[in-house]
Amino acid sequence: MGNQYGLIRHWVPIFCGFLSTVYSVPLLSAEVKPLIGFVPESASRERTLEAQFDASLAKNNLRDWMQHLTARPHHLGSAFDKENAEFIAEKFRSWGYETAIEEFEVLFPTPKVRVVEMIEPAKFTAALSEPALKEDATSGQVSEQLPVYHAYSIDGDVTAEIVYVNFGIPKDYETLAENGIDVKGKIVLARYGGSWRGIKPKVAAEHGAIGCLIYSDPHEDGFFQGDVYPKDAWRNETGAQRGSVADMPLYPGDPLTPGVGATKDAHRLTIKEAPTLTKIPVLPLSHSDALPLLKALEGSVVPEDWRGALPVTYHFGPGPAKVHLKVEFDWKQVPLFDVIAKLRGNERPDEWIIRGNHHDAWVNGASDPTSGMVVVMEEARAISELLKTGWKPKRTIIFAAWDGEEPGLLGSTEWVETHGEELRKHAALYINSDGNGRGFLNAGGSHSLEKFVNEIARDVQDPQKKISVAERAKALALVKGNPETKKEARDRADFRISALGSGSDYTPFLQHNGIASLNLGFGGEDNGGVYHSIYDSFDHFTRFVDPKFEYGIALAQTAGRAVLRSANADVLPFEFKNLTDSLDKYFQEITKLTDEMREETKQKNQLISDKTLEAVSDPTKTFIVPAVKDPVPFLNFAPLQNALAQLRESAAHFDKLRNEIASGKRTLTMDQQQALDSILLGSERTLIRNEGLPRRPWFKHQIYAPGFYTGYGVKTLPGVREAIEQRDWKEAEEQVPIVAKVIEQFAAEVERAANSMN
Amino acid sequence: MGNQYGLIRHWVPIFCGFLSTVYSVPLLSAEVKPLIGFVPESASRERTLEAQFDASLAKNNLRDWMQHLTARPHHLGSAFDKENAEFIAEKFRSWGYETAIEEFEVLFPTPKVRVVEMIEPAKFTAALSEPALKEDATSGQVSEQLPVYHAYSIDGDVTAEIVYVNFGIPKDYETLAENGIDVKGKIVLARYGGSWRGIKPKVAAEHGAIGCLIYSDPHEDGFFQGDVYPKDAWRNETGAQRGSVADMPLYPGDPLTPGVGATKDAHRLTIKEAPTLTKIPVLPLSHSDALPLLKALEGSVVPEDWRGALPVTYHFGPGPAKVHLKVEFDWKQVPLFDVIAKLRGNERPDEWIIRGNHHDAWVNGASDPTSGMVVVMEEARAISELLKTGWKPKRTIIFAAWDGEEPGLLGSTEWVETHGEELRKHAALYINSDGNGRGFLNAGGSHSLEKFVNEIARDVQDPQKKISVAERAKALALVKGNPETKKEARDRADFRISALGSGSDYTPFLQHNGIASLNLGFGGEDNGGVYHSIYDSFDHFTRFVDPKFEYGIALAQTAGRAVLRSANADVLPFEFKNLTDSLDKYFQEITKLTDEMREETKQKNQLISDKTLEAVSDPTKTFIVPAVKDPVPFLNFAPLQNALAQLRESAAHFDKLRNEIASGKRTLTMDQQQALDSILLGSERTLIRNEGLPRRPWFKHQIYAPGFYTGYGVKTLPGVREAIEQRDWKEAEEQVPIVAKVIEQFAAEVERAANSMN
Repeated sequence: MGNQYGLIRHWVPIFCGFLSTVYSVPLLSAEVKPLIGFVPESASRERTLEAQFDASLAKNNLRDWMQHLTARPHHLGSAFDKENAEFIAEKFRSWGYETAIEEFEVLFPTPKVRVVEMIEPAKFTAALSEPALKEDATSGQVSEQLPVYHAYSIDGDVTAEIVYVNFGIPKDYETLAENGIDVKGKIVLARYGGSWRGIKPKVAAEHGAIGCLIYSDPHEDGFFQGDVYPKDAWRNETGAQRGSVADMPLYPGDPLTPGVGATKDAHRLTIKEAPTLTKIPVLPLSHSDALPLLKALEGSVVPEDWRGALPVTYHFGPGPAKVHLKVEFDWKQVPLFDVIAKLRGNERPDEWIIRGNHHDAWVNGASDPTSGMVVVMEEARAISELLKTGWKPKRTIIFAAWDGEEPGLLGSTEWVETHGEELRKHAALYINSDGNGRGFLNAGGSHSLEKFVNEIARDVQDPQKKISVAERAKALALVKGNPETKKEARDRADFRISALGSGSDYTPFLQHNGIASLNLGFGGEDNGGVYHSIYDSFDHFTRFVDPKFEYGIALAQTAGRAVLRSANADVLPFEFKNLTDSLDKYFQEITKLTDEMREETKQKNQLISDKTLEAVSDPTKTFIVPAVKDPVPFLNFAPLQNALAQLRESAAHFDKLRNEIASGKRTLTMDQQQALDSILLGSERTLIRNEGLPRRPWFKHQIYAPGFYTGYGVKTLPGVREAIEQRDWKEAEEQVPIVAKVIEQFAAEVERAANSMN
Repeated sequence: MGNQYGLIRHWVPIFCGFLSTVYSVPLLSAEVKPLIGFVPESASRERTLEAQFDASLAKNNLRDWMQHLTARPHHLGSAFDKENAEFIAEKFRSWGYETAIEEFEVLFPTPKVRVVEMIEPAKFTAALSEPALKEDATSGQVSEQLPVYHAYSIDGDVTAEIVYVNFGIPKDYETLAENGIDVKGKIVLARYGGSWRGIKPKVAAEHGAIGCLIYSDPHEDGFFQGDVYPKDAWRNETGAQRGSVADMPLYPGDPLTPGVGATKDAHRLTIKEAPTLTKIPVLPLSHSDALPLLKALEGSVVPEDWRGALPVTYHFGPGPAKVHLKVEFDWKQVPLFDVIAKLRGNERPDEWIIRGNHHDAWVNGASDPTSGMVVVMEEARAISELLKTGWKPKRTIIFAAWDGEEPGLLGSTEWVETHGEELRKHAALYINSDGNGRGFLNAGGSHSLEKFVNEIARDVQDPQKKISVAERAKALALVKGNPETKKEARDRADFRISALGSGSDYTPFLQHNGIASLNLGFGGEDNGGVYHSIYDSFDHFTRFVDPKFEYGIALAQTAGRAVLRSANADVLPFEFKNLTDSLDKYFQEITKLTDEMREETKQKNQLISDKTLEAVSDPTKTFIVPAVKDPVPFLNFAPLQNALAQLRESAAHFDKLRNEIASGKRTLTMDQQQALDSILLGSERTLIRNEGLPRRPWFKHQIYAPGFYTGYGVKTLPGVREAIEQRDWKEAEEQVPIVAKVIEQFAAEVERAANSMN
């Protein structure tokens, strides 16, 4: 490692000479391309700096650090988790960052007893373990591995017939009801997929089930998708998916300290009080453990889209398969180690650009999270190299390596809850990643940053195709998108970034505190199948995911640019026309959803009342005609339409002035820049509402939230959208003016920002 | 059997008394409902007659005859096939029909040698046999069973690597090409489904393959669909599908006597000259025989919609699996026995109503064909009972039991080819069935009979739901249809009957001779999975298909009404507004198809030329950018539009007068009736063109044909549609005026029919 740094140190001056010759053409053309937030001359300087940054990035660092960090299991609370935090902190320190390890105390139950045994019609005991493979060097570290289990399941000891519930999401229970099947008093067997895993036991419990098993069907990530590990990348018959089943759409983080940092002396709920623990015991199964249960189920054959890839006829049950499920946990508190490394801004130190990835894993975690963590480290190192050229960032840069993300975004949530006030004051932007693969850029986040992301993506080259990652993402949309996506890819100048739901560390920043956020990563050509298993290893990653770490470098170039540009920009790189366009789209989705629900309800009710459904049903099979649903009323969406119209005007006004500055037609004084920055820095905060969403006050953002019944899957304009989806017309009518008011406030803030440029 | 007839004979007078009390309400209301082709007073008489007919139908006959006819394997050329023909003939004779067995001599190769063995990378020999089951009484009749094979495969002895080609239809070869895979010199392994089986070796040979294996993937009719036989109805791991692979879209019937009856002294082609024999050897496999081959394939993983339900990762190959395929046939000629039973018409004996089903099976054939054959017999018996009341049919009724349908519609085709001239002169209507199941009415045929079918379906009660079979069919469309079907079911007075492709004995009548035809049957709730296997047995049928023979009776009521009404009507029950509506629909489909192809071609060419496809491809996988396609020109559809406009007017004119007669406002003299009849009888003939379709002169109908690359699947307006699908713009431009002229001639004929009523 010493050698490597020596090389880079000597290489910097050589590199500068190299640049001025070979890169002369791109640099010249770059000088005329504006950069959002930059006046022309600083844009040119920024591009030179970024070329230096790019040239400093070294794949071998990614490889070496990954090998080190994944050498042993490093889950929250483990010895190697702490060692890794210290290793990362030491690296940051060695690169000149002001570094601290911030510690919290969090609830982290690990299992003492795990039993899944079929007692009828035949005996079978689930192995609940993933065997070592000789082709995978770390797979045999059994004593340090967390067993196959679900974090934040409650203790339980239940015996009951099982019912196969497909993905176990709400609409699956409608199908069960139509087939005359009640899960009350039963254990449900769900397959992974269709929602975040934590939704499955939650919905099962709502329907009266007393236990929940979740298995990995080969249809989703096993042999149906490709050859299995170690021959190829996909989940083999014993591979199982660990994971959290806490009710994260209620709140993430330590279940015992909602809303406050889990410091040593924080007020804590008791286990009994903690609302995000499951209501019923849960365990994950590999498909070799699930197959005997599925084989033993009888009853009607499930619908076609419920069937997986196992060589069995899938039946609903209930029974005759009867299962004994027992779990007992050690309900311990463990220390959590967040690594926080700061580089103080030169000119506007009180404006913070934060960049993070988690460092804890379920087991060895090469893909998840280490492939992203090492990229964050390499960005930090390459930025430290830039300091040697005399450059300093205008704003403060903070690198974070979160702990405890896997059980429930613990490290980021507790840190954000602890530092909420400072963050709301200082944080301009949070840039997240959570691992990295090979393929296409996935960018999600605040749409006020969409133009910023597009500019960056046009400047980063795809390592395989030698076109920009923006072009490659657009090509994907043109070839594989649905008709709407294809049309958009043809007609829209910028690609649309996705809205963020949850599942990674941006959630406390964005949705709890209204800090504009991005989530970046590459994927689509890396093969899955080892997610949250012992086989997510260095061996697997370097054979099947990003063997040359080329896309690790591409992510460093992308996220690194986001850090550098936002830290260096003359004014923060926000923009609101693209945001307005996305809000318009979400609004249209909601009105379309309402109209479609109205028409569907009408038609379905008609089919029920005129007995058409009954006429079609096969009398040899159970079919329960569903109850007629309440008709869908016409809702007053006018407040939202008016608010959006207002935002459209403000955004256009802002954009006009912003373009004048970017093109050099208009200049801002330093005071004006500062004043504008301070408005922009807080702009996303006006999209939150302190009361939060109905029944989940922790989630305050009024545009983006994880779905209460999808988990990770995003719900945009969630207050209104979820009320409609849940057919709560009264709440929908109440939420429309609430969300409209938030958008109006935001529009006023955008207008204020525009006026500050005059 | 004697007892039963005795019972019925005594029962007729009692039944009449019974009718006048219990059925009084329906009969009263029936009197005011008009019947197409009937003046009011004869409509009323007809309904009374039909009620007598219904009451005479006996489930036990269906059951007893099925048990008798399926007692032993009865394929073409077998001893029991001949015995069955004689049994059926004897029944017809006993009911008073003028009955003959008409014999032909046809080519029917059966296998002497069948070998499928994998020689690399491991040894495996396919069993190619279906074992006996103790739960199935006839499954052990090994010495009489035809082995698992494909009729009209050529002899062959080839050894080559295999390539998995999905369904083996043309678009699958586009996917293979994009993945850099050439089947030249290889043996293809295709799964059943996606097209008629005969298409698979034809397309494989066109692409240079030297052999073809077709297996039954459990995804289509095995454990993926439901529990397997004998537990439930679906195909088990050793079940295999026999069948014909002759190039029937070229011509059906005896491969050696195209266009002429295969009488003893007919001119015959040599085997070498026969164009409908396959170009490469073919054999079917059960999935237990296919699994080792699929397991041994390597190469890229196939696309998701290519994957079946076997517990294996599906790869393209080629190889390393290498297979030796050998087939050698006994190219013998066998006698074929069609049973033809006539009941001479009273008033218009030269107008023939023909009703048929085939009697030959691949093995024991309970579902296919016996479930339909016994219904034809019961219709004939019940009609013979009506004769005892003094009633006589106005027109001649002919019942037919075809032999040799399975290898290629041999019995019907040779009979129709032999009697072509008479049939073109006398045949008013052919009503076909080909087995029967449980569930929903499937009706296909000439759209000039659509209103006739709708009236019948409104008068037949569904045995399970006690609503009319028309209402139940409509309910199915409303609940399970695509959006277009649903809309049509809501808005259109009549349900639309489907257009006929091929796969059963209507083909020589309709498509070779222009005889208006119907194909009727119930299904959708009977479980498949024994099609063309030894397990299509009485045991299977009575457990899983139509155990109570209720739907056998429903079919007898439906098809029997079609026979009775068309035989008794004052004028033949044709109508042309519904036909015009369907022709409009087909025309719109074709213009839409052309427009969509134009847009798709443009977009795809753009993606190719601007390298977008290349940008998306994964460089670790083979991807061959497809060649740019010629753009789709705008075609001159005006001749078709003008012809359809003309037909619309004539049809409206005809309908106006027809309604006046039905309501009693207008009356026709007997001479007028006869004149009108003679025009209507020949009307469908004006839809044929003696030159036939391009490259397949045997198929003469210009509205309906089996697809050259789909097999059974229909292509409407085939001359134009297939030219467009094959991107032969010149031929499409040529075909438009040809088809337009045919429609114009038809319109003139309809106008002539209308004028004859004046």
